[in-house]
Amino acid sequence: MHYRYVIRQLALLLLVLSGAMGVALLYELLLIYRITAGSGETRAAYALATSTSIGTSLGGIIYFITRARPGDITSFGRREAMLLVATSWMIGAALAALPFYLWGNLPGAAPDHPFHTFTACYFESMSGLTTTGATVLGAEGSKIVDLPKGLLLWRSATHWLGGLGIVVLFVAVLPTVGSSGKKMFQVESTADQGGVRPKIAETARVLWLIYLGITLLCILLLMATGSMGLFDAVNHAFSVMSTGGLSTQDASIGAYDSVAVDIIITVFMILAGVNFVLYFHIIQRRWNLMLHDVELRIYLILKIVVSLIIAFNLWGGKIVTTAGVEKEAGFFTSLRYASFQTASMQTGTGFGTADYDLWPMLSIGLLVPMMIIGGCAGSTAGGLKVIRLWIMLKVMWSALERAFRPNVVRPIKVGKMVIDDELKLSALTYFCLLIVGIAVGTLLTLLFEPYSQCDLQTALTASLASICNVGPGQHHVGPTQNFGWMSAPSLWTQAILMALGRLEVYALLVLLLPRFWSGK
Amino acid sequence: MHYRYVIRQLALLLLVLSGAMGVALLYELLLIYRITAGSGETRAAYALATSTSIGTSLGGIIYFITRARPGDITSFGRREAMLLVATSWMIGAALAALPFYLWGNLPGAAPDHPFHTFTACYFESMSGLTTTGATVLGAEGSKIVDLPKGLLLWRSATHWLGGLGIVVLFVAVLPTVGSSGKKMFQVESTADQGGVRPKIAETARVLWLIYLGITLLCILLLMATGSMGLFDAVNHAFSVMSTGGLSTQDASIGAYDSVAVDIIITVFMILAGVNFVLYFHIIQRRWNLMLHDVELRIYLILKIVVSLIIAFNLWGGKIVTTAGVEKEAGFFTSLRYASFQTASMQTGTGFGTADYDLWPMLSIGLLVPMMIIGGCAGSTAGGLKVIRLWIMLKVMWSALERAFRPNVVRPIKVGKMVIDDELKLSALTYFCLLIVGIAVGTLLTLLFEPYSQCDLQTALTASLASICNVGPGQHHVGPTQNFGWMSAPSLWTQAILMALGRLEVYALLVLLLPRFWSGK
Repeated sequence: MHYRYVIRQLALLLLVLSGAMGVALLYELLLIYRITAGSGETRAAYALATSTSIGTSLGGIIYFITRARPGDITSFGRREAMLLVATSWMIGAALAALPFYLWGNLPGAAPDHPFHTFTACYFESMSGLTTTGATVLGAEGSKIVDLPKGLLLWRSATHWLGGLGIVVLFVAVLPTVGSSGKKMFQVESTADQGGVRPKIAETARVLWLIYLGITLLCILLLMATGSMGLFDAVNHAFSVMSTGGLSTQDASIGAYDSVAVDIIITVFMILAGVNFVLYFHIIQRRWNLMLHDVELRIYLILKIVVSLIIAFNLWGGKIVTTAGVEKEAGFFTSLRYASFQTASMQTGTGFGTADYDLWPMLSIGLLVPMMIIGGCAGSTAGGLKVIRLWIMLKVMWSALERAFRPNVVRPIKVGKMVIDDELKLSALTYFCLLIVGIAVGTLLTLLFEPYSQCDLQTALTASLASICNVGPGQHHVGPTQNFGWMSAPSLWTQAILMALGRLEVYALLVLLLPRFWSGK
Repeated sequence: MHYRYVIRQLALLLLVLSGAMGVALLYELLLIYRITAGSGETRAAYALATSTSIGTSLGGIIYFITRARPGDITSFGRREAMLLVATSWMIGAALAALPFYLWGNLPGAAPDHPFHTFTACYFESMSGLTTTGATVLGAEGSKIVDLPKGLLLWRSATHWLGGLGIVVLFVAVLPTVGSSGKKMFQVESTADQGGVRPKIAETARVLWLIYLGITLLCILLLMATGSMGLFDAVNHAFSVMSTGGLSTQDASIGAYDSVAVDIIITVFMILAGVNFVLYFHIIQRRWNLMLHDVELRIYLILKIVVSLIIAFNLWGGKIVTTAGVEKEAGFFTSLRYASFQTASMQTGTGFGTADYDLWPMLSIGLLVPMMIIGGCAGSTAGGLKVIRLWIMLKVMWSALERAFRPNVVRPIKVGKMVIDDELKLSALTYFCLLIVGIAVGTLLTLLFEPYSQCDLQTALTASLASICNVGPGQHHVGPTQNFGWMSAPSLWTQAILMALGRLEVYALLVLLLPRFWSGK
């Protein structure tokens, strides 16, 4: 294992995160300058300043010490790349948690605030960087709205950076090497092929511009509704683009109770759940490729069908928003809340406008498979991914035929691509890994929580929401609840599940194999 | 499709079932002769007599009409075999439901008894023949103990016959044709190969003797405890051998509250969950083959480890038996109830001695994966089967290594057998089919049940228990509850799930493929 180059890249990550932290710090200072800030606000400025300094100096020193030598690039192989990816999220979350932790422990901090413990802070920042959107905040005494604005901004910024990182990783880095599109996730060395590097850089640059562009559009539209100011619009746009889910409001998007906001966020959640490669096609005016994309079609059909079923299911009853407002569920009101919640769950954003825990059981039940299926590959959404679901269904279908006609071999196709055995196995294996991950997470959470507080539904949907990077689950971790009541071991379990899901399981689990380290 | 031969075999099935029904009838008549029977008992005699006559005459006539012609055997192919297997359980359940239905509708029957509707009767007999063990009986007014004894015997007999059918199908018929041991389930034509038929008959004969022998041993041991009379011992031995779960008591095995009974049933449940091929090895004194069987080892290790975890989890608390007795949970008491329940869930028997719904969440949570994993292939137990779990875990493990070393191909082995791609895919596909089946079953059940009565835990564990042929689930279908409250559509859903799980999904689902019927 060639560690030096990996460490150098990690140092670079620390520098980038510190830079973003610096922006939040500047915003915090601006606030303090303009208004009479409370003690919480000044403490936040101290926390952000200290964190920025620590991150910058640590990153800078390490970067300096491990400066590149000839031969670094060539010895940077697949194992090094996987190690880098895994440690990026683990160490990144540690630095990102620092402002929360310092704010919760500097003199004047309330000792019963969740951010008093590092576990809760790490959970929150991991939830941010993995674009999960689960939070420990929200109980009496730790309301989200009471958090200093600089920290709120930093919280949303972790989403945005994490989402960008994932898109670049899965769209720019991975398919460029190896057989394009065929492997859905294999961390590949970027160094082996001489000519690839510039291409990765170019793709990453375009991606970043697309990502930034859609974010800016979302900010503008949200502000145009009149319901959100610049601050709220920026935070929520960050959250939407990364299909994260952290909000600046305790009642999430339900706090605004605005049809326009709901529609805009629904649309942008759907956009964020689309394979970013398709935006390349749009830029290059290759509409054809976009219109014939099988995954996109199924993704949208799923979205529409499930939204309609839930809307009909809600129609005629009552809907309680996350802010506690009760509404008569006419058809359009039902459709509004149903399509928002479906998009939120399918893309793994996790925003809430209605307290879906009160919905009929069929609707609640339908949201669960949506959480597992997730968005498209190459998006910021989590879960199994639509393309894998499609392959899985095709494999099951063909298994049926082979049961009575074993000698007939019909190739399985997705669009025009023939799916070989390896790809079939990889899609099915990933599904099994998710299910096993959810089962182990559920059992551990049940083990760590006292007798009656955490029931099966809570533990199951929490683990499912974490590994699929959705955020909220059901019941005690439902849309109007939070993870603050969980004990430290449970929070670590959930944080690990988030990282597992975000890095598509392999990148993190390989660290447990002795062969990975020995290289034999 | 060559229907005549299939229909002829179905007629034979009707005759066999009617014969067994006749035995229950004789027992009922004996009872009426010896004691002053209530109106329920005479009605049961009428019901059994009518059903036996209908079954015998229908079976006899069809069998006569469709008598064999030259060429029948050779045109009996794989599709015909699958059709026969699928229809056997569907039509068998219809005939087996007849005594219940007649008893519930002859003059003098209570109109609010579940057996008044054919759906409930079909559910009960399908639950019997698939060795699931879920019941609609148990509520006030429809207690199990109030059912006439002839019907109780018939209920248990469906278990025993269903279990025997499954063992013969999976051990004698399937591996004899096709590559032995490699295909875990492919219904093969038995006619293509000339020399195979005698071997199947011979294997089936030995199997039947083994099955009968262990059943007799179980009956004798249960009677020796002094807690059970001949009638109870026979019924429960039928239920244990087939890993069914229907009992003659409303409180299931908990009604006897006997350590000896618990131990005997635990041991025999474990025995019934073992691959019956291993009993062949024992008969042939090939101990070596048995001792080195990987599946058996993992099956027992799983059993022991989970029993111990649950025992430690229960230790020091209170255990409420299914009969409502509260006990201090000392270590041995905990171990007794834990090992009974683990064996019951793992083998898919579904007996209960304790109300595990009241157990700590970790224990409840651990029982769920045990239900899914199930027993060994070639046993009467349901679920995924241990061998598939093992293959699945090995595939996931090797996928991890391939993530960072794609060019190294290490063959996956179970014992000395190398697992090829097809077998890997088949194990994973089966798991995915189970999960999808559970998900669809859950959603349908939630759809068919009113707003609040059926929660996610109930619908999920009911569907899981049905497709894995366990029987009881959790919460409203828990160990002290029953399926009687479910509406007709839900009961049909559960009955279909039972048949799906019992016939390993394929045999039933292929009937939906147009290509299956057209033969193209």
